[in-house]
Amino acid sequence: MSFNSFGRIFTFTTWGESHGPALGATVDGCPPGVALDEAFIQHFLDRRRPGTSKFTTQRQEPDQVRILSGVFEGQTTGTPIQLMIENTDQRSKDYGDIAQAFRPGHADIAYQMKYGIRDYRGGGRSSARETAARVAAGGVAQAVLRDLVPGLKITGYMIQMGELHLDRANFDASEIANNPFFLPDASAVPAWGDYLNAIRKDQNSVGAAIEVLIEGCPPGLGAPVYAKLDTDLAAAMMSINAVKGVEIGEGMAAAAMTGTANADEIRMGKGGPEFLSNHAGGILGGISTGQDIAVRFSVKPTSSILTPRRTINQRGEEIELITKGRHDPCVGIRAVPIAEAMAACVVLDHLLLDRAQTGGQRGHIG
Amino acid sequence: MSFNSFGRIFTFTTWGESHGPALGATVDGCPPGVALDEAFIQHFLDRRRPGTSKFTTQRQEPDQVRILSGVFEGQTTGTPIQLMIENTDQRSKDYGDIAQAFRPGHADIAYQMKYGIRDYRGGGRSSARETAARVAAGGVAQAVLRDLVPGLKITGYMIQMGELHLDRANFDASEIANNPFFLPDASAVPAWGDYLNAIRKDQNSVGAAIEVLIEGCPPGLGAPVYAKLDTDLAAAMMSINAVKGVEIGEGMAAAAMTGTANADEIRMGKGGPEFLSNHAGGILGGISTGQDIAVRFSVKPTSSILTPRRTINQRGEEIELITKGRHDPCVGIRAVPIAEAMAACVVLDHLLLDRAQTGGQRGHIG
Amino acid sequence: MSFNSFGRIFTFTTWGESHGPALGATVDGCPPGVALDEAFIQHFLDRRRPGTSKFTTQRQEPDQVRILSGVFEGQTTGTPIQLMIENTDQRSKDYGDIAQAFRPGHADIAYQMKYGIRDYRGGGRSSARETAARVAAGGVAQAVLRDLVPGLKITGYMIQMGELHLDRANFDASEIANNPFFLPDASAVPAWGDYLNAIRKDQNSVGAAIEVLIEGCPPGLGAPVYAKLDTDLAAAMMSINAVKGVEIGEGMAAAAMTGTANADEIRMGKGGPEFLSNHAGGILGGISTGQDIAVRFSVKPTSSILTPRRTINQRGEEIELITKGRHDPCVGIRAVPIAEAMAACVVLDHLLLDRAQTGGQRGHIG
Amino acid sequence: MSFNSFGRIFTFTTWGESHGPALGATVDGCPPGVALDEAFIQHFLDRRRPGTSKFTTQRQEPDQVRILSGVFEGQTTGTPIQLMIENTDQRSKDYGDIAQAFRPGHADIAYQMKYGIRDYRGGGRSSARETAARVAAGGVAQAVLRDLVPGLKITGYMIQMGELHLDRANFDASEIANNPFFLPDASAVPAWGDYLNAIRKDQNSVGAAIEVLIEGCPPGLGAPVYAKLDTDLAAAMMSINAVKGVEIGEGMAAAAMTGTANADEIRMGKGGPEFLSNHAGGILGGISTGQDIAVRFSVKPTSSILTPRRTINQRGEEIELITKGRHDPCVGIRAVPIAEAMAACVVLDHLLLDRAQTGGQRGHIG
Repeated sequence: MSFNSFGRIFTFTTWGESHGPALGATVDGCPPGVALDEAFIQHFLDRRRPGTSKFTTQRQEPDQVRILSGVFEGQTTGTPIQLMIENTDQRSKDYGDIAQAFRPGHADIAYQMKYGIRDYRGGGRSSARETAARVAAGGVAQAVLRDLVPGLKITGYMIQMGELHLDRANFDASEIANNPFFLPDASAVPAWGDYLNAIRKDQNSVGAAIEVLIEGCPPGLGAPVYAKLDTDLAAAMMSINAVKGVEIGEGMAAAAMTGTANADEIRMGKGGPEFLSNHAGGILGGISTGQDIAVRFSVKPTSSILTPRRTINQRGEEIELITKGRHDPCVGIRAVPIAEAMAACVVLDHLLLDRAQTGGQRGHIG
Repeated sequence: MSFNSFGRIFTFTTWGESHGPALGATVDGCPPGVALDEAFIQHFLDRRRPGTSKFTTQRQEPDQVRILSGVFEGQTTGTPIQLMIENTDQRSKDYGDIAQAFRPGHADIAYQMKYGIRDYRGGGRSSARETAARVAAGGVAQAVLRDLVPGLKITGYMIQMGELHLDRANFDASEIANNPFFLPDASAVPAWGDYLNAIRKDQNSVGAAIEVLIEGCPPGLGAPVYAKLDTDLAAAMMSINAVKGVEIGEGMAAAAMTGTANADEIRMGKGGPEFLSNHAGGILGGISTGQDIAVRFSVKPTSSILTPRRTINQRGEEIELITKGRHDPCVGIRAVPIAEAMAACVVLDHLLLDRAQTGGQRGHIG
Repeated sequence: MSFNSFGRIFTFTTWGESHGPALGATVDGCPPGVALDEAFIQHFLDRRRPGTSKFTTQRQEPDQVRILSGVFEGQTTGTPIQLMIENTDQRSKDYGDIAQAFRPGHADIAYQMKYGIRDYRGGGRSSARETAARVAAGGVAQAVLRDLVPGLKITGYMIQMGELHLDRANFDASEIANNPFFLPDASAVPAWGDYLNAIRKDQNSVGAAIEVLIEGCPPGLGAPVYAKLDTDLAAAMMSINAVKGVEIGEGMAAAAMTGTANADEIRMGKGGPEFLSNHAGGILGGISTGQDIAVRFSVKPTSSILTPRRTINQRGEEIELITKGRHDPCVGIRAVPIAEAMAACVVLDHLLLDRAQTGGQRGHIG
Repeated sequence: MSFNSFGRIFTFTTWGESHGPALGATVDGCPPGVALDEAFIQHFLDRRRPGTSKFTTQRQEPDQVRILSGVFEGQTTGTPIQLMIENTDQRSKDYGDIAQAFRPGHADIAYQMKYGIRDYRGGGRSSARETAARVAAGGVAQAVLRDLVPGLKITGYMIQMGELHLDRANFDASEIANNPFFLPDASAVPAWGDYLNAIRKDQNSVGAAIEVLIEGCPPGLGAPVYAKLDTDLAAAMMSINAVKGVEIGEGMAAAAMTGTANADEIRMGKGGPEFLSNHAGGILGGISTGQDIAVRFSVKPTSSILTPRRTINQRGEEIELITKGRHDPCVGIRAVPIAEAMAACVVLDHLLLDRAQTGGQRGHIG
């Protein structure tokens, strides 16, 4: 299994560093005959792109994706799809300071310990730029899902930024695209803006929590015991830079619940079994039940801040470090489209796995 | 990739149903020349075994493991190790009620939808009995780690049961083995006992949260980006039955933190870099730093309770269901040795992966 | 990827040594709802079993397979199928001579160099007994293929034993089961018997070549470029003990051919494209075409012979060695059912892979 | 497992079509700290490049490789290495004839049946151009092997072209680079040239056989039973376009041998065990013994010839087809550097796998 690959049947391998000539994703196992072009993928990349608001890094890159293989006359051919994004705004000099120093809380020092060498420019491989390649791969998954599961909808949004929490009473999915926070509550946007401005002026950064809702997921996806749908979703989210926790359904709160409160009771609906609640988050025994799947995760505050922190450098000297450069005060914001992309890849992968093993046939109930 | 396999180099595949003749784990990729016998593995199984206190299921099984292959004259040979546990106390009649009905919150219905067939006896493959095989596999991993990383120590314990939380001020690891809750605080044991007795008398069940502490883990384990150490730990824990959330370091709380508070500052110690705090939970960029690794996860309350819940049966009829039989009021308790086993397997797997790629050499700092 | 696993979706992992308590195969990824019982698998094992004629080892073992999991009420459930065969006739004393010595041409010395330890009893893991587990796994594959591809037929037979070659003019598949050589030519059986008797009396052994014919294989199986159907078939056959060469279609003879002679011309038949010849052996670009697939391979003569050979022992002393015990004068004979089993597993695995990626839909021609 | 990936730890995924904008290989799992630049890889690509003699296709492409990631300041970093080769001489019009027709013996029709769509330009993904990406990946493997196994030498050469066979009595490895046939016998070059000229004038093509000799391979590589070194070498070679047979050591000839003749007797040499012969081809039980490893394979004659062959087109009409364009009369010639590349990747992969499981320690003998 490749260290930089994700997936079992629908797989992608990301490659590239923050300040190298290009980065991308090699997508393999894509079904043939699916309509796909660069514009479709670009749509997803544009949502993730830095520089789109004052709340994300001011690195100005078009992040223009090119499809180098696997698509012919507008359709996937079933062969590997190479998605390449050239790095055009690299400004290496911005990062000169940290060539020899280790940012506290950053992967610098871990890479150095493991590999004895690292591309220090912009964090190299550990940069959040790697996630652009995921989003591109997720675009391919979305194109296939559009064909195979017409009703499927994957929606990410922020539910927390530092001390601020989404008020679920105000939830309005149609507002997510209208503000720089992917926030499904228009009324809260000003307060979130003020809060984040204050964080930035304070030369600080802040964490976040994101939720991804998968609506219309067919039942039967997920293969117990070690290819559970929730296992793969957890791995997908935890693989995103700076993620420290993942929850499905009730998540960590399940620890406080009783069995009577937690049981999702079942009745017969017109189309089959219907659940009266969804504490499980749409997954039982690692298999989707047809209910909405809810995944949440936390993103720690970026370690690249202007406030000096104590650290060491390559020579082992103790120093104080300020990370200059273009950094998001809340990297969690951009995790929203990344998480949607990962969710799309997981769902598609399991759809293909399921049709391998069961032929996509569903067992009868009732 | 096999659906029922875990790991990349050190792998295990579990097999078996709750009420079949036997279950077990096929362990592959184990280094040769490691001392191993059944007694060593049995020690871990005994900690997980049901029936050891009134707080776990009264199913009386010795869960006696047999090594059928891969060990010769007391040493591993580098060939597959088959670990078999015979099912001796199956009492199928206990489960007759649920042959046709679906327990709310249980995997029954999901298996039926996916496969169109399920071994309903005791939950079949979805039973927590599958975890006995993991614990056996974890025993093999522990034997290898004892050889390869002498200072490594993996310790699991409960930190929450329903409304009760561990008071970390009282933390005493030496007490974990002295009570039925794997609780590192002797003073709290009576209260936990009373609480759980009340839950059981109420014909209810309750959730839990567990923490696994990995001390002495070498730096450099974990391979970015999709074989991160935390990604694999998250997948490992999420694959355990009834787990709904996984956290590393600050976990979900990271969403509320600022960059200045979250940064783990670094100084030079005698043996190399030293961190002044551990918000990251011992992992940066998916790679271990040598600090303690802290993983937490929640376990939902079992869905098998004596309080009637509304559900349907195989014919689609709406019914009320009581799950008789021998069920733990808090399945989370038994998750402690299971999580230790999974953690041991993940750490060993990454140790082997790391020596594949880097030869186990560490980059120099200072 | 597990060292002892084969397959991608339909996978099996074999375990066990020649003289351990048992050996077997852990089958994962099997489709649910397929009728399966021990008798069906036993049928395949009986064809491979030693002791069935004077031309195979006189080790008397029933090789009785037990299904320990994954089958419920006569049907596969989609969960792992554990197939166990107990070793009942181990006679360890027979092998005492070779505990410290290395048989020339045998894997003993390679295991010792690699692992520093080996189960020397009967060759341990390198024994041909491992192949019993493959045959059992192949039985599961055959059961699934019977359901999914009714017209498929996999037939193995010997085409060469030492100096003797099958006369293809006499080919009669119905004779294969009627003689101890799996020879599709009844008229040649006496000569083959005399030849092998002479080899044995001479305290010698002899090589063999086997062909497996796969009739009725659907087109479209095989995924370029590194999961080609012929690539996997080649790996499958080369993984069998003592195999030294594998051929598809024209095989090594293709080196001598011209493009005009080798081209399989195409016409339109009633059901679609028809090929006028089959030099390709039913596979083009790694993908099955619907033609018969022909795979051939050679098996070297066993290295366990009664004629003394020069070798060394564990202490590095130079000795002469005779391998006493119960050994086949032509191990290639038993490779026939083994190769059929491997072919069945490869075809099924690719059938499942194909329905994952393409949904099993075939592109239209004409 | 990705369909277009090769390897277990040292992996590469090739992507790209003959007439797309570019093709390449995504290499993952490469050890860090290895000196690598484009010139080193280019050396291997230049040996494979078409247009270097009148005996290979006249397509004029520099096949210039670019390293897009994974190398920093001249050293590998342990992160994915993207190797891209732009297609610069695509001349799509040359292939217009075959857009709708299926070349007999070519993968066209198999792709169409499987995927329902294919990039017909130049054979698309099934083109031999894919092998340029393998050669580039092999260059990375060679760089790593140069560091890790200084004495290792991998040498490919032709041993047969149609009716002509290498006379092993004249074997001179130093001549291989001096002629367009990779022929280790200078005296035979004129005759091989005349022969191939005649084939071409006859508007025909011819098959070939290649041998790869691996000298200095450490003992202990290869993991029984399904990751045998010979199994992976067989898969590697069989995955090369047009290969129809693979042999290790005695190969198919082993079928005719007796046990006394085939046994490689062993004596003690200064450095350890020494074998008196090498019928096994350097591999016993799937594990390298330290002897030279010999792999042979056949390449069928290209199906793209100027002599008309009967076939059908996309509409199912029966036609006669001539394949114009730039085609090698003997594609086997270019298979030599490809096979060397694949062999390098297999050996490196197993070296890394072995140090994962055994730490690269060798068991003591003597």
